[in-house]
Amino acid sequence: MITLYSEGHHQHHGQAELKDGQLVPCFEKPARADMILAQLREAHLGAIKTPEEVYPEVQSHWQQTLAKVHSQDYIDFLANAWREWSAAGHQHDMLPLAWPPRRTTSIRIPDSLDGRLGYYSFDAGAPINAGTWPAITDTVQVAIAAAELLHRQQSHVFALTRPPGHHAGRDYMGGYCYFNNAAVAAQHLLDRGAQRIALLDVDFHHGNGTQDIFYARDDVLFQSIHGDPRACYPGFTGYADETGEGPGKGFNQNYPLLPGSDWSEWSQALALSIIKINHYAADALVLSLGVDTFEGDPISHFKLKSEDYIKMGQRIAEANIPVVVIMEGGYAVEEIGLNTRNLLIGLMTPPQES
Amino acid sequence: MITLYSEGHHQHHGQAELKDGQLVPCFEKPARADMILAQLREAHLGAIKTPEEVYPEVQSHWQQTLAKVHSQDYIDFLANAWREWSAAGHQHDMLPLAWPPRRTTSIRIPDSLDGRLGYYSFDAGAPINAGTWPAITDTVQVAIAAAELLHRQQSHVFALTRPPGHHAGRDYMGGYCYFNNAAVAAQHLLDRGAQRIALLDVDFHHGNGTQDIFYARDDVLFQSIHGDPRACYPGFTGYADETGEGPGKGFNQNYPLLPGSDWSEWSQALALSIIKINHYAADALVLSLGVDTFEGDPISHFKLKSEDYIKMGQRIAEANIPVVVIMEGGYAVEEIGLNTRNLLIGLMTPPQES
Ligand SMILES: [Zn+2]
Ligand SMILES: [Zn+2]
Repeated sequence: MITLYSEGHHQHHGQAELKDGQLVPCFEKPARADMILAQLREAHLGAIKTPEEVYPEVQSHWQQTLAKVHSQDYIDFLANAWREWSAAGHQHDMLPLAWPPRRTTSIRIPDSLDGRLGYYSFDAGAPINAGTWPAITDTVQVAIAAAELLHRQQSHVFALTRPPGHHAGRDYMGGYCYFNNAAVAAQHLLDRGAQRIALLDVDFHHGNGTQDIFYARDDVLFQSIHGDPRACYPGFTGYADETGEGPGKGFNQNYPLLPGSDWSEWSQALALSIIKINHYAADALVLSLGVDTFEGDPISHFKLKSEDYIKMGQRIAEANIPVVVIMEGGYAVEEIGLNTRNLLIGLMTPPQES
Repeated sequence: MITLYSEGHHQHHGQAELKDGQLVPCFEKPARADMILAQLREAHLGAIKTPEEVYPEVQSHWQQTLAKVHSQDYIDFLANAWREWSAAGHQHDMLPLAWPPRRTTSIRIPDSLDGRLGYYSFDAGAPINAGTWPAITDTVQVAIAAAELLHRQQSHVFALTRPPGHHAGRDYMGGYCYFNNAAVAAQHLLDRGAQRIALLDVDFHHGNGTQDIFYARDDVLFQSIHGDPRACYPGFTGYADETGEGPGKGFNQNYPLLPGSDWSEWSQALALSIIKINHYAADALVLSLGVDTFEGDPISHFKLKSEDYIKMGQRIAEANIPVVVIMEGGYAVEEIGLNTRNLLIGLMTPPQES
């Protein structure tokens, strides 16, 4: 399996996120991708290529694709945020401090940078610094090139994207996410002629951003298996009754599971989601892969074991459609590489029919 | 003029608020009230009394009044928050880290403490610690006792409330505010038989919480003079077109002014607000007094001078109705006492007709 990767992500290295009333070092850091890369190399899983190697046109095309999943005002905000912030004399990473209160009658975008930062955020866990823009635009190109390769080869592809993307909505960031790499990959496949894309999010956390982007669309079937929003971050979306709206009604499906769920509970939700993918007759599957479902994850609450990721990959392979894997979360840095490698191995080696 | 005051506020002393990407010492601190008290004593402005001295029944009545302006679930959250937080092993003040994203289809209250903290907040500037609950319930009683005294004597009263309250909505906190002291005072006056209360907010920041509480009511005319929300904190409310809803339509009036406004601009908005109060024929005026309109305020952007507060008090006195002054913001700690004292002196000594 070919892996798409770019060194650009190293430029995004947040100093701190707000947790338990303190600023603590970011759980989302460059070492995460490095650990995965090391495991892929060790296992000889296949070639590792840059976006330019497989799809040179990506450099002139990515902005068009991005603008189909994020609003232009949000993209512009991210493009200019650090310049404005540092021009105001600030040294620390940007973090939002106030946001629109519930029941605000008509939410308008403030002019002030603090106001816009709060408007475009839903948490104080996605710091912006000097390297954020180059890193997130680089990663978007990794996702697009991976989708392009899937389109051409119709065999599974892995996009080693970082920072992750599934919490980023049409015009908001949060949860370490700025641009929604999985949504961009799905959009590129549609732009290449696909009629129906299944997007399955197996990260521990609800893919609230992806849900937001496709909530009123029927060309992407979005499904997410995640910690129950009553108990788990991000906490306000991911209920089972959120099923889409307008033309998207019926094309959004959430599988909230209680903290402590292990493979036996988790795999039942997966089985249901694969039935739905088959019924939808998707042309391709975009897999938002977070390995923070791992029992040792420091900020999550499922109990999957490293060997469960092999089974997860095998079950997904049984859907029998091309899969582009987009990397999302996973914060047990020592095991993130092994668990990702296991998923990919499972995907490449479905069990033989007896 | 009698001042109502209680020592209980000292128990609420936040460690830090999120500002410019860092946790910085709270601008809102016990010394603010101490400085005001010292100036009142120096100027011999009148007796300083505790709530129990003027209204012993307040101890058994305050919860009833509070429940008319805040939801019971919000009150319960604040009552239990620190106990739950410390039971979870946390040492630092509580600060919210994630909140409902825009367009969340149906916002439900999470079970988790982090989820509820984000649900009941609109910024990361209102830390909760062990002393918060005793301080904010003490201060609510100061506000109620002041309103009771106004009801009995029909002469101006000063409630030296701390922490402030005008950013606290029906079921959310933020901006150093937890319970809305001014709203509670207005409610008590209504409960004592008043038909119409005018509530004028002259703090630099929009009184978004007070607006939220009375937005659909016609028994309280709410007006706020403040920094334009396009440029100033809290940033999402306070536009001139927010005029109330339902029975409250026409009973909410905002006067946003540009940063840099001085007494000449500011006093024009005040004149308009007083015309409206007279036309409303209010039985009493609740004045949300923030002196962060002062030119030396470290977090605000108007240019009022210390002597302007005398004129402000005089103009308000000309409305010729009983006034209960509720203390809100003001962060230039050296001058906060002088500016408050000047306002009260102006209120007590309207210029004589020539
Ligand atoms: Zn996650
Ligand atoms: Zn203020």
